[in-house]
Amino acid sequence: MTSEKTQHPFEKFFYPKSIAIVGASHSNDWFWLRNLISLDYHGRIYPINPKYQSALGLTFYDKIANVPYDIDNVIIAVPAKYVHGVLKECILKGVKLVTIFTSGFSELGTEEGKRLERELIELKESTKSNIRILGPNCVGIYCPESGLSFRPDFARQSGHIGFISQSGGLAINMGLRGKVLKMFFSKIISFGNAADIKPVELLEYLAQDRKTRIIGMYLEGIKKGPEFMKLLKKVTVEKPVIILRGGQTDVGARAALSHTGSLAGSNQLWNSLFHQTGAIPVNSFEELVDTLLAFDFNYRHLPKGNRIGLLSVSGGVSVVNTDICVKLGLSIPKLTSESIATLQTVVQDVGTSVANPLDLAASFFNIQALRTAIETLGKDENIDSIIIEIANHYIYTPEQHGAEGYTQLFYDTVLRLLKKIRRAGKPVLVAFPPIAHETRRIWDRKLFIDAKIPIFSSIMAAAQALSHLVRYSNYLKITGNI
Amino acid sequence: MTSEKTQHPFEKFFYPKSIAIVGASHSNDWFWLRNLISLDYHGRIYPINPKYQSALGLTFYDKIANVPYDIDNVIIAVPAKYVHGVLKECILKGVKLVTIFTSGFSELGTEEGKRLERELIELKESTKSNIRILGPNCVGIYCPESGLSFRPDFARQSGHIGFISQSGGLAINMGLRGKVLKMFFSKIISFGNAADIKPVELLEYLAQDRKTRIIGMYLEGIKKGPEFMKLLKKVTVEKPVIILRGGQTDVGARAALSHTGSLAGSNQLWNSLFHQTGAIPVNSFEELVDTLLAFDFNYRHLPKGNRIGLLSVSGGVSVVNTDICVKLGLSIPKLTSESIATLQTVVQDVGTSVANPLDLAASFFNIQALRTAIETLGKDENIDSIIIEIANHYIYTPEQHGAEGYTQLFYDTVLRLLKKIRRAGKPVLVAFPPIAHETRRIWDRKLFIDAKIPIFSSIMAAAQALSHLVRYSNYLKITGNI
Repeated sequence: MTSEKTQHPFEKFFYPKSIAIVGASHSNDWFWLRNLISLDYHGRIYPINPKYQSALGLTFYDKIANVPYDIDNVIIAVPAKYVHGVLKECILKGVKLVTIFTSGFSELGTEEGKRLERELIELKESTKSNIRILGPNCVGIYCPESGLSFRPDFARQSGHIGFISQSGGLAINMGLRGKVLKMFFSKIISFGNAADIKPVELLEYLAQDRKTRIIGMYLEGIKKGPEFMKLLKKVTVEKPVIILRGGQTDVGARAALSHTGSLAGSNQLWNSLFHQTGAIPVNSFEELVDTLLAFDFNYRHLPKGNRIGLLSVSGGVSVVNTDICVKLGLSIPKLTSESIATLQTVVQDVGTSVANPLDLAASFFNIQALRTAIETLGKDENIDSIIIEIANHYIYTPEQHGAEGYTQLFYDTVLRLLKKIRRAGKPVLVAFPPIAHETRRIWDRKLFIDAKIPIFSSIMAAAQALSHLVRYSNYLKITGNI
Repeated sequence: MTSEKTQHPFEKFFYPKSIAIVGASHSNDWFWLRNLISLDYHGRIYPINPKYQSALGLTFYDKIANVPYDIDNVIIAVPAKYVHGVLKECILKGVKLVTIFTSGFSELGTEEGKRLERELIELKESTKSNIRILGPNCVGIYCPESGLSFRPDFARQSGHIGFISQSGGLAINMGLRGKVLKMFFSKIISFGNAADIKPVELLEYLAQDRKTRIIGMYLEGIKKGPEFMKLLKKVTVEKPVIILRGGQTDVGARAALSHTGSLAGSNQLWNSLFHQTGAIPVNSFEELVDTLLAFDFNYRHLPKGNRIGLLSVSGGVSVVNTDICVKLGLSIPKLTSESIATLQTVVQDVGTSVANPLDLAASFFNIQALRTAIETLGKDENIDSIIIEIANHYIYTPEQHGAEGYTQLFYDTVLRLLKKIRRAGKPVLVAFPPIAHETRRIWDRKLFIDAKIPIFSSIMAAAQALSHLVRYSNYLKITGNI
């Protein structure tokens, strides 16, 4: 088949026609089977376990060799000491792709663990098999398009973010957090100890994957540095790559070594990598999520520069927010004189010299003033993007503005205007810190999520995410790619 | 009366026997009256407005002069141009303390605004009145003990935090956020433009106030620098003082000038102030809240040093958390060999070299292992405090550990052990990031709040707050105060 020939060798990791689960077991409530069933995986599933005949409507086999069909992809979830035997069976069966979920290999730091892992690679090499191994010590692959998953509670909807994670825990957190934020994924790949398949190969796959527009990575080390750097440089001009790096400190590096047997690499090396490739460094899981969200929701709307229009309700909040944004490299310029003149006609208490940051104060509750304020920032040619801070205790307020009708009008107006401004080319971001009314906040936030307006839990988070958009936009400009 | 003689002159700001509201009006749904009524203020209330006879069961007066009783405290909420006249009436009536809510003074940056403000002080001086003025452009005072408030939805319960804020918005946010976290206040004071009463005087009040143990401040500038520094130095050895400073950047300073007419002061000056006085600088509202919470809930349990025991569920999360803690100046030391030996008997997959950070992995769901892990860190003499990260998607999981019974057992166990460790002298902090199950998270968090275990929305926030506790503890040691 011609199409097969041109297919990337990893394609069947994500779109297998059949998958075997070695170690499917009742003891964990058929976890791996339920992962596939929950996401409506529509290929064939072959559970392997001599203890069972059938479960969940699926027929069990006692071993790989006795499955009378081709198998595209095998998930190995048996104890470490049995993995070698199962891998051998996979090779004999002609399986091309396996995921080893099992831990207890080089990450233990023991001679025994290292030997077990080495023996898997030696088996592959001695048999001259072209089998490829993901893991061990990884949760493997999530691909909502084909219904593959390592959690039964991940979203069934596909999106445009590809996430490559050395950590299964972070891969799980990412999938779950993404579902809450309706930030959807093309693929999530957890690769664990990287005994065979290296992150650089996974990056190369996502680079050519047409479903993936934005790439996130969690890495605890890089084994093929120069190759990785060269590839990154090529990828980032087409797709932003955001990297959370584990092991930045000595103790963190020691923990990384024990987690996946990785050597973290020097900070100097990594800094130069980020500098030279345009990849975006982040320092926490939250920052990674926020940055992916900003890129995803503002896709095709990169800021032209670092000049922001900043709106808040309170003067003190405006001052603090300004400091935070400026320290993160954003600029809060004066507005044009036309904008100031317009604002002075409708916004209460606008001083003569300052209209950015714009402290809306009581005008937050005057829909005409609010509309004019947002529209004016949207049109102002000194402004490249907009951050608006909303705190819903100003909306669900005991004062008169809190009438239920105003809530609806407020959110409708803000959403409509922000969407309009973005359509006209400026990214928009919302900071919605939890102050009071937290349960309502979760509901209110959905309005923005559904409108694909990126929303963050603090001004710091919004400004940090925006600063990464600006950095990436600048990189594309400098390298002549926009 | 002797007791009156020894009373601090500001005492009646917080505990007035009678209060007049000039400008009480139906147009804002009797906002100021409802603030007092909602918190059960039990002194006498005199609403002043010639337009009304009575409302909410209160008798109105047309002007201050016609109130036939003494008035301890007056809140002025009339338009700026009428404030001078009202202040004159207050002076004639012999009122000692007024709060001017009205804005439209020096913060406007206009000659008119500056003049109006100057005239208030000139009036006070020319009449040789000993009246004291809070504001203008401030929301004034919240004192739950007496039922005084500037919001009807603030907590009625008193606590031990005193917060002095140049910004009304931040004062409101603080009160509301505190209520959610059951972090209660002795007093919140918003002082706005500080035309008469300066923050240094308010700090001096809270320093001698026996109800206040911890002090937070939001400042946009300092007018009496040397006096402030001297006082701070004296206060911090008895009560931690945490300061969020607005106007740290040029644009932020410009915004501060327009907000309250303040001159922000140089970063150099402020840095030396923080260095010399032991006051704790924070950089966002969230960090201010988190730090106050850490001090309040861990009161009398300062860490002996910066060495933490760090627990998480996932290996990757552990690595990232470690980097974050170490960058914030915390140390994650090796445990004693006794601790490692104990952990190896019960916790799955503990490597030979690393038990801190402790990746509990599957042992998170084994109550005996979890108990041993927390107890071991609690007893380990290399550890000064404990941070545990909880993500409830590991508890409300689709796998077998998610049985409802386990949820209860898990939280009960963690809470009991953390309380025990703290009683034995080590501060404990919980990071509870929102991943999935956000609404449940709000409920789960209450368990920790009710147990006065400080809980944060990220490891970054927890580590930052703890680093401030460590910094303060060190300061007390160095200055010979513990």
